[in-house]
Amino acid sequence: MSVVSSANSASVSSPSTSAPAAPSPSPRHIRLTSHSSGLGSIPIRWGAATAQERGPVVGTTTNRAHRNVIGTHSGSYSVYRALAVAAGALKREHKADLTNTSPTDVIGPYPQWSDPGRIVSLDPWGASVAEVYAGELAAGYDIRPTIAVTQAHVILPEVIDALQKGRLKADGKFLTPGGAAVVTKVAVEPVWYLPEVARRFNCSETDLRRVLFEETGGMYPELVTRSDLEVFLPPIGGQTLYIFGKPRDLADTSVELTARIHDECNGSDVFGSDICTCRPYLTHAIEECIAGAQRGGVGLIAYSRKEGRALGEVTKFLVYNARKRQVGGDTADQYFARTECVAGVQDMRFQELMPDVFHWLGIQKIHRLVSMSNMKFDAITGSGIAVGERINIPDELIPADARVEMDAKMAAGYFTPGVVPDAEELKKAKGRGLSE
Amino acid sequence: MSVVSSANSASVSSPSTSAPAAPSPSPRHIRLTSHSSGLGSIPIRWGAATAQERGPVVGTTTNRAHRNVIGTHSGSYSVYRALAVAAGALKREHKADLTNTSPTDVIGPYPQWSDPGRIVSLDPWGASVAEVYAGELAAGYDIRPTIAVTQAHVILPEVIDALQKGRLKADGKFLTPGGAAVVTKVAVEPVWYLPEVARRFNCSETDLRRVLFEETGGMYPELVTRSDLEVFLPPIGGQTLYIFGKPRDLADTSVELTARIHDECNGSDVFGSDICTCRPYLTHAIEECIAGAQRGGVGLIAYSRKEGRALGEVTKFLVYNARKRQVGGDTADQYFARTECVAGVQDMRFQELMPDVFHWLGIQKIHRLVSMSNMKFDAITGSGIAVGERINIPDELIPADARVEMDAKMAAGYFTPGVVPDAEELKKAKGRGLSE
Repeated sequence: MSVVSSANSASVSSPSTSAPAAPSPSPRHIRLTSHSSGLGSIPIRWGAATAQERGPVVGTTTNRAHRNVIGTHSGSYSVYRALAVAAGALKREHKADLTNTSPTDVIGPYPQWSDPGRIVSLDPWGASVAEVYAGELAAGYDIRPTIAVTQAHVILPEVIDALQKGRLKADGKFLTPGGAAVVTKVAVEPVWYLPEVARRFNCSETDLRRVLFEETGGMYPELVTRSDLEVFLPPIGGQTLYIFGKPRDLADTSVELTARIHDECNGSDVFGSDICTCRPYLTHAIEECIAGAQRGGVGLIAYSRKEGRALGEVTKFLVYNARKRQVGGDTADQYFARTECVAGVQDMRFQELMPDVFHWLGIQKIHRLVSMSNMKFDAITGSGIAVGERINIPDELIPADARVEMDAKMAAGYFTPGVVPDAEELKKAKGRGLSE
Repeated sequence: MSVVSSANSASVSSPSTSAPAAPSPSPRHIRLTSHSSGLGSIPIRWGAATAQERGPVVGTTTNRAHRNVIGTHSGSYSVYRALAVAAGALKREHKADLTNTSPTDVIGPYPQWSDPGRIVSLDPWGASVAEVYAGELAAGYDIRPTIAVTQAHVILPEVIDALQKGRLKADGKFLTPGGAAVVTKVAVEPVWYLPEVARRFNCSETDLRRVLFEETGGMYPELVTRSDLEVFLPPIGGQTLYIFGKPRDLADTSVELTARIHDECNGSDVFGSDICTCRPYLTHAIEECIAGAQRGGVGLIAYSRKEGRALGEVTKFLVYNARKRQVGGDTADQYFARTECVAGVQDMRFQELMPDVFHWLGIQKIHRLVSMSNMKFDAITGSGIAVGERINIPDELIPADARVEMDAKMAAGYFTPGVVPDAEELKKAKGRGLSE
């Protein structure tokens, strides 16, 4: 009994083999085909010039015949969606009512959208599906947004502090007297076009598919059995964008753009753990973005869900213990080595896909990049975006215990306008012990 | 060619069918069997009295013959691990060097650990694998911690404010003069024992497995083909615990315990978005935990990765737009309806699994629960944990735009010591418009 491969039979161009077999462990049959229509799936032509030519991304689980991707929507939250169905709280047939949900700001389209190799890890049409695929929606396809755009007021204690100390001034437009910054917020789910994702990692598409299947312990066999399905919705976190000023100004190289790409660090971003500089650097970047918008520019924070260098928090905490217990104490010269012993690599964030979101926003130049990471800088400039000034974190914002990380990173090639620590400096134990 | 079902053949008790077939799209063969030893997999006896009788959770992708679970480690970050292998940065054979990584505080074992139905979504032995499975590790099994315990100093601007205003006082032990709170931090990855997870959701294990497979678009066919594998490592976020005071006091009902279970809200927790009360309530709970520890008690924040009620951030932002654009404006009486129109449910967090972490910590009584959620309260007390006082968020911490949410929740049964808003009150538009 073929379960998965039957789903998309109308568009199968080169079915490589039979799909995974699933038994029928209870009397109810596993659903194989369409409920709501006899229509087949719509092909995706990645990088096509218009939304119509490109075709919608259809990851519905309701009507399998319509699916044209591997995986489904909402990243890893699809597991919770399954629990909702198991608990009887959610009807399998539910279709999202998209009334009033459309973006508060129109983003694009930009020329970058129709270059198949420029944007490979998100769907540029993902915010406007209700508009650009209105016909397909009316015909019964369950097409869901993979991007959502809204407005918000964000209130950070550090911004209020900047107001009180006079570093920022309220203008009632970008920053209220109460310290609320007015922003456009964008949530972006990952949508991977596998042929070009493979190219970014300098491996063959076949190898990428195989490794994604094997190294996840067998997730989505379609990765290896359905080479005709070229788009994958991976069950991972996406990105959130905070835009200070007009979103359309991001694409205008004559408007000064201040930007930070920030990788999630829950322990610092939320709880203020002092072992790293994540939250201080983030709030400094927000302050720079607000000031930039106020002087006629535009600001952007792109927040990526890549906890603990995409190693996850368990690995991160194991490394903390190994760093602080090693002979000689917590030193910068052993900073990367300790991560590598536990995780096998120093970093799994792989900034190769990160610039996609900048291209989606039409960005061609970042005038002020609030980041010291050489990996981020290289990825951004390597993708064809010009970078002007680089803004380091001010020394007074670096917590004492985070000095180890900062020294290690500067020695490894991170940008600094100051002195790069030498070998002797890197051997000094600067991190607190575990019992301190 | 059988790929997945061959992996665990030594322990297969009732193989229900053949496993998914995978083709060999390039000359290299997909790895089927052991590299490092001829040993088979070790059975898991969930809820057994000792670690030895229970057996280790083995989710390695290196030696498939050793695997005794569905899925793999690090939640959704296994996808990044796969990218690391695809990029040539990580050796498939890498085994974590666990030197110096062991927990900074010993948690348990507690009697709750050997009740198979009490803890069903995490591995109680997951922090101490290097110790309790030393023999198996020496024999060549790649056993990884699913829990990590470390120490940290956390510095929150709101706590510094409480110090400056005299609501908290530094003692040099729980709270430094600089405003750093001294905590034990614990990261916990999900480990699901499927028979009992199904029981929590009042469905059959067969139905749970089928729905998890179908509603994720076909993730892990082993869910339906390998009923002998009863443990699943789902690719979702886990929990982080922040303990203020001695971890062992959590299990002592004579020590006052202040606790909050907090579900992730990136927009508020990190960026301070004013549409909800998430960060203000969280920082209030941290203040309560510090004060509790200082008067001889113990405090606990359990932070769960369930962004946007486990609907994900794209859905959350779509709902924000629908709320603020609807006729009549953003009112409490339409608060839940707008979520349901888009998502099909009001909430997908399903607190049914949440109390597990309390039982892992040995908790039998929460003296002061810093939460107004009736769903959390019902789940905690329903699992056999006594709750004393319930602490609401102080009115002055509720942002103006979050009044809609607060009114809607109180009307729906959330705890409040004050007045529950009536139907007329709920119809008032209290949320800001999108252009405001």
